[in-house]
Amino acid sequence: MQGNLSINGSRLWETIAASARIGAAPRGGLRRLTLSDADKEVRDLLAGWAKAAGWPLTVDRVGNMVVRREGSDPKLPAVLIGSHLDTQAAGGRFDGILGVMAGIEILRTLDERKITTKRAIEVVNWTNEEGARFYPPMLCSLAFAGKAEVDWVLDRQDKEGKRFGDELARIGYAGPAKVGGRKPDAYFELHIEQGPRLDAAGIPIGVVTGGFPTRGLRIEITGETAHVGPTPMARRRNALVGAAHVAVAVDEIGWRYAATEGKTTAARLDLWPNLPGIISERATLFCDLRHPEQRELERMMAEIETALPDCARRGRCSVEIAERWGFGGIAFDVDLIGLIREAAASLKAETLDLKSEAGHDSYNMASVCPAVMIFTPCRDGISHNEAEDATLEATLPGVNVLLRAALARANR
Amino acid sequence: MQGNLSINGSRLWETIAASARIGAAPRGGLRRLTLSDADKEVRDLLAGWAKAAGWPLTVDRVGNMVVRREGSDPKLPAVLIGSHLDTQAAGGRFDGILGVMAGIEILRTLDERKITTKRAIEVVNWTNEEGARFYPPMLCSLAFAGKAEVDWVLDRQDKEGKRFGDELARIGYAGPAKVGGRKPDAYFELHIEQGPRLDAAGIPIGVVTGGFPTRGLRIEITGETAHVGPTPMARRRNALVGAAHVAVAVDEIGWRYAATEGKTTAARLDLWPNLPGIISERATLFCDLRHPEQRELERMMAEIETALPDCARRGRCSVEIAERWGFGGIAFDVDLIGLIREAAASLKAETLDLKSEAGHDSYNMASVCPAVMIFTPCRDGISHNEAEDATLEATLPGVNVLLRAALARANR
Repeated sequence: MQGNLSINGSRLWETIAASARIGAAPRGGLRRLTLSDADKEVRDLLAGWAKAAGWPLTVDRVGNMVVRREGSDPKLPAVLIGSHLDTQAAGGRFDGILGVMAGIEILRTLDERKITTKRAIEVVNWTNEEGARFYPPMLCSLAFAGKAEVDWVLDRQDKEGKRFGDELARIGYAGPAKVGGRKPDAYFELHIEQGPRLDAAGIPIGVVTGGFPTRGLRIEITGETAHVGPTPMARRRNALVGAAHVAVAVDEIGWRYAATEGKTTAARLDLWPNLPGIISERATLFCDLRHPEQRELERMMAEIETALPDCARRGRCSVEIAERWGFGGIAFDVDLIGLIREAAASLKAETLDLKSEAGHDSYNMASVCPAVMIFTPCRDGISHNEAEDATLEATLPGVNVLLRAALARANR
Repeated sequence: MQGNLSINGSRLWETIAASARIGAAPRGGLRRLTLSDADKEVRDLLAGWAKAAGWPLTVDRVGNMVVRREGSDPKLPAVLIGSHLDTQAAGGRFDGILGVMAGIEILRTLDERKITTKRAIEVVNWTNEEGARFYPPMLCSLAFAGKAEVDWVLDRQDKEGKRFGDELARIGYAGPAKVGGRKPDAYFELHIEQGPRLDAAGIPIGVVTGGFPTRGLRIEITGETAHVGPTPMARRRNALVGAAHVAVAVDEIGWRYAATEGKTTAARLDLWPNLPGIISERATLFCDLRHPEQRELERMMAEIETALPDCARRGRCSVEIAERWGFGGIAFDVDLIGLIREAAASLKAETLDLKSEAGHDSYNMASVCPAVMIFTPCRDGISHNEAEDATLEATLPGVNVLLRAALARANR
């Protein structure tokens, strides 16, 4: 490890500020949905920086952007540093963005110091990590990992029926490059924790050992339209009420596991017709549940399945789990975790082992090559909120750990 | 009463069938939202019939259509027969429509029999009775009754932000006539019951003595956006969960009053951002409650107010009643009720006294002039549902009662 090597913190923070001007939302955060005009603008910013530095940029068919700083042996698989520049509908200035900007700052630092690495280092901006516009999230690392067909990705539609592929072409980022199909040497992702533990403990570096096992559910509740007035209570089958019973039950199960870090979310509810005057006949409720222990997660899932018939009975609707998915129940690469610890030790920076509780592109990359994540503190753990915040002071050690670990890996 | 006078049932049923072809929905019902292309088409049909018969048509500034069959003394206030041709998003073929078509059939019968009435009889098609597109329902009888400003009506917006006034002009029904400002002699409205009692009892005529006192509430639930993953349960303030607690509580209060015909509805829920990955911070829940007794309704309302703080606590959100409204707690005109009973007796038709549990334009008209309603049976009480149905056999007595009562009133 090169003990004196450090990135330029002010320069890093200027890139965060430059990003924060694009898609600025009313309360200090960002609204930069995938493939929106704001997404195009921030992509253009990244592309401009790559061009100015002389780093080749590759854009693949689903819009993933790869900025490459060549190594002395171009034939060796590259070391990747990735994250995303899209945000939630009301997101913060750091979620995803910090990871891409840390990568760019690392390339700039290496250029400045005239350091040549053996392997190339590539900085990746993944398309549609958030899933706030096109479902599912982490869509384009999924395609990179060969778990989603490119045509299927291009056919995703947003709530207004706009097609992913059309929107990608509209903003000029439907690239020619093949999606994935290669095995990088390693994948690093630095991200704000999005939880309160590092900030509360005053520890700058989270060594992410893996991801919380997560289950997602799409639950369909079916009732019957009827007049809100004369229809007697005993003849009502209100899908809104059925969905409300499910949302309450799912929330209560989260509370029963809260002491062991379990949690549940009733995240999205779509109703039809959803008008005053008429009882709704259809409800679609998206829920998720997370627990650090797989076995406990399975218990939570079983409790939800047990609760649903009662929700159906009380709401007088049919209730059915229509779709299930899962992610996160993975362990990151032990060699890369070791490298992170070593880099932190070289900086005399304290670390905390954490499991990630959010979804990240790193989960998909972990199925392709050795992968790992570094977490840095965010104020009070607030994220997916415009008030999301982080300080340079608390962030700098993590970025320097990433610099040193990536450099060590690129030179091996 | 003219004992042998009767409308032409087949001709009436043909008008229902002609209407049912306009805005036909997939499951046999109608989707004919106010000021849509389908609304224009059914208005054109009505206008065409008026023209063919030589009855002058007046359209006022909010699109209310008035078809007039002149009386021998044109200076006397007219007798009005009204209802609406707009439908719910997934409505039936009879709700509102039957009342307008009954009026047209009555005018045709009078023409055919060459009966001249002393007062004119007017058939009214009220704009936006349902409120399925523009809020609130019964909007344009409200304006007729002088309780809503015309400009305010024209500025109403639908969910997509389209303006009532623009849509009215687009379909060509922004008429020149003044809205209301006159006191008709009487207002009659014939409507399917939208409840099961007449059908279950096999009685063809409901004498509507008044409306159920009804309260409406807009409840605002406020939480905080946060990441669905790392945010601990104890730090979540999910507006969806808060709203679910309110919906369940409101529904349970309805059940507690179900034995005395009380009922509650959680009718519409709007959430923001309502996306997977982020906890929602805003929920707007529209609820209503109804009871035949005003005092009991006030108790229901008090129970809801008592329940809300607990919903707020359990959902960890703020919960606030942001808007309240009410309608229906009225008694219809005793003279007109007497006329209905007399007409039914002349037909030897059995009657049942009912209170209306739905909203109707007649409530607004009751503040302008003597008003009354006649209910006719609908199959199984199903309404605001595409399966809504009625038979000519069960409907005919009610229309003949309307004919005789309106004729008697027009000749007084």
